[in-house]
Amino acid sequence: MNQQSNLPAAEAITLPQPYLLFLGDNREPGYAKTAYGLRDWAGDLCIGEYKLDDQTTTTGLPQLTPAEAAAKGAKSMVIGVANSGGFIPPSWIAGLVEALEAGLDLISGMHMRLADLPELREPAERLGRRLIDIRTPPRNIPIGTGRKRTGKRLLAVGTDCALGKKYTALAIARGFKARGIDADFRATGQTGIMIAGGGIPMDAVVADFSAGAAEILSPDAAPDHWDVIEGQGSLFHPAYAGVSLGLLHGSQPDVIVVCHEAGREHVLGHPGYVLPSLQETIDLHLRLGSRTNPAIRCGGISLNTSKLSAEEADALCASESERLGLPVADPVRGGPAFERLLDNCLA
Amino acid sequence: MNQQSNLPAAEAITLPQPYLLFLGDNREPGYAKTAYGLRDWAGDLCIGEYKLDDQTTTTGLPQLTPAEAAAKGAKSMVIGVANSGGFIPPSWIAGLVEALEAGLDLISGMHMRLADLPELREPAERLGRRLIDIRTPPRNIPIGTGRKRTGKRLLAVGTDCALGKKYTALAIARGFKARGIDADFRATGQTGIMIAGGGIPMDAVVADFSAGAAEILSPDAAPDHWDVIEGQGSLFHPAYAGVSLGLLHGSQPDVIVVCHEAGREHVLGHPGYVLPSLQETIDLHLRLGSRTNPAIRCGGISLNTSKLSAEEADALCASESERLGLPVADPVRGGPAFERLLDNCLA
Repeated sequence: MNQQSNLPAAEAITLPQPYLLFLGDNREPGYAKTAYGLRDWAGDLCIGEYKLDDQTTTTGLPQLTPAEAAAKGAKSMVIGVANSGGFIPPSWIAGLVEALEAGLDLISGMHMRLADLPELREPAERLGRRLIDIRTPPRNIPIGTGRKRTGKRLLAVGTDCALGKKYTALAIARGFKARGIDADFRATGQTGIMIAGGGIPMDAVVADFSAGAAEILSPDAAPDHWDVIEGQGSLFHPAYAGVSLGLLHGSQPDVIVVCHEAGREHVLGHPGYVLPSLQETIDLHLRLGSRTNPAIRCGGISLNTSKLSAEEADALCASESERLGLPVADPVRGGPAFERLLDNCLA
Repeated sequence: MNQQSNLPAAEAITLPQPYLLFLGDNREPGYAKTAYGLRDWAGDLCIGEYKLDDQTTTTGLPQLTPAEAAAKGAKSMVIGVANSGGFIPPSWIAGLVEALEAGLDLISGMHMRLADLPELREPAERLGRRLIDIRTPPRNIPIGTGRKRTGKRLLAVGTDCALGKKYTALAIARGFKARGIDADFRATGQTGIMIAGGGIPMDAVVADFSAGAAEILSPDAAPDHWDVIEGQGSLFHPAYAGVSLGLLHGSQPDVIVVCHEAGREHVLGHPGYVLPSLQETIDLHLRLGSRTNPAIRCGGISLNTSKLSAEEADALCASESERLGLPVADPVRGGPAFERLLDNCLA
């Protein structure tokens, strides 16, 4: 097990904002998820979009060159599109360098690191701009201490990966704020970090430091402040459960919200692994989470009902709520069920 | 969550053997733990020791210069001592370079990387020798698959860190071999890796790859072959539980042996954290471990009784065995209780 070093402890990543969104020459809306997520959840931080040609997908935000965006106050350009290989194609380089020359830092969540491309590193160094790779965690993350921190915390957990934990945490943080509650969304994945303007990429942290990373992600706060933390992976996932447990222990949540997709029966990509029941999922999180916060409780269920009609979704949320004795809502659909979920999280 | 790359999947580290043990100019036996561990558990792989002066602590092995050791077949020199800062003092450099010049690779488990020292990197490059830092995990570890592997596996787990998991796994592997069973000790920490001549430093693996690392550590094997795997951390530890869960899931143990130190009541260094009971520890491991191996069972308890007299230790093992309905033994003391533990693991 690792020792703590004598260097000052790390803090979570913080990003220069507001953003210009870079869409490259992408034709495929499915690859522009990051740009759409930023538009939907951090629209006030997005000054505009920059496309390399007319056929490129659009977010509907104003089209600006890097120089125009900088004149309007933009501090960075975010790569808002992915491609299947996770790399930066040669056709993007001139546009990325143009942003550096206009005074913007570059932000990327892709697998290929910006700093590994000499065509970008050289102008960035010459111009004094930053190349920020969101997948690179901060240096010198401390070992977890297990010390109870002040303030309130909610963690979105799940029966599986990729079923709405980020969306749920964002919607709950937004719902809390709408009620006048002092709340922060705390991001643990690439897109979430861009939306929040900071956070820690939990999946890229060395395993010994997982809980410590979660601890610095949601530091001591005022007694009535809420951190609403994006979950990662699942305690039931054959590859990622360790990340989920480190995040659960380090987050010390007072409240968990369990996320699930209606109809999903197996772990995504692992057909041999049946998903746990909602009750099993609640029980295991409360048992393990009570190690660092004995007062942990379940606030309710966030059900992704995107494959159902509105009527089917309402009926399912109502019957599941009756069965489990907890609020069950789809935050995308909102409405009274979601308000009841918020009520119970705050109860 | 990370994607798999297209590069060939990693394999566990393998080390050039036999070893010459380097003791530097160390005066403090407590700092020579690695050298003593290698002498005790891999004595047939240790050709001798190399000390910089007469006051240096000794393992009792033949004293050889690097050239003499190389002539006797040594392939590498292992740094067998630590110091409080985890760094390599200037007084060692000439001796380390002497080993490179004699044709030996260098192996270190220290925090400071050998390859970061120009005084070593330059001669190693010039002479074509390897500088092997055990704390650096292999590149390109795959994401866990959860696929059930052939062969049998035993994992030493614990109520806490630093109470005998490595020793327990080594003793069980040795006990299995003494019965003619085909068994391998699988190492997950620095000293264990040197003893085994290979393994994976689980604490240094990026969290998303913990289970995948455990999977490649104990690959498919013959149906009656046993991998006896060194555990790390504890599911109840506020900092390290994520590592322990990734290792549990990826190891897919058929049998766990729970390690505990008699009299320890709190997590080492975390006085606010009471240790779980043995029954709680067994239950949680079986519940979580059953996710990747539904046939998981507990083979017994390995009790570190180093602070007790022989009579007290025997009485405690007997009463705990009666209470839990499982074999309880201290592998350091061996004897019939330990043979019963081996019996039950193989049952």
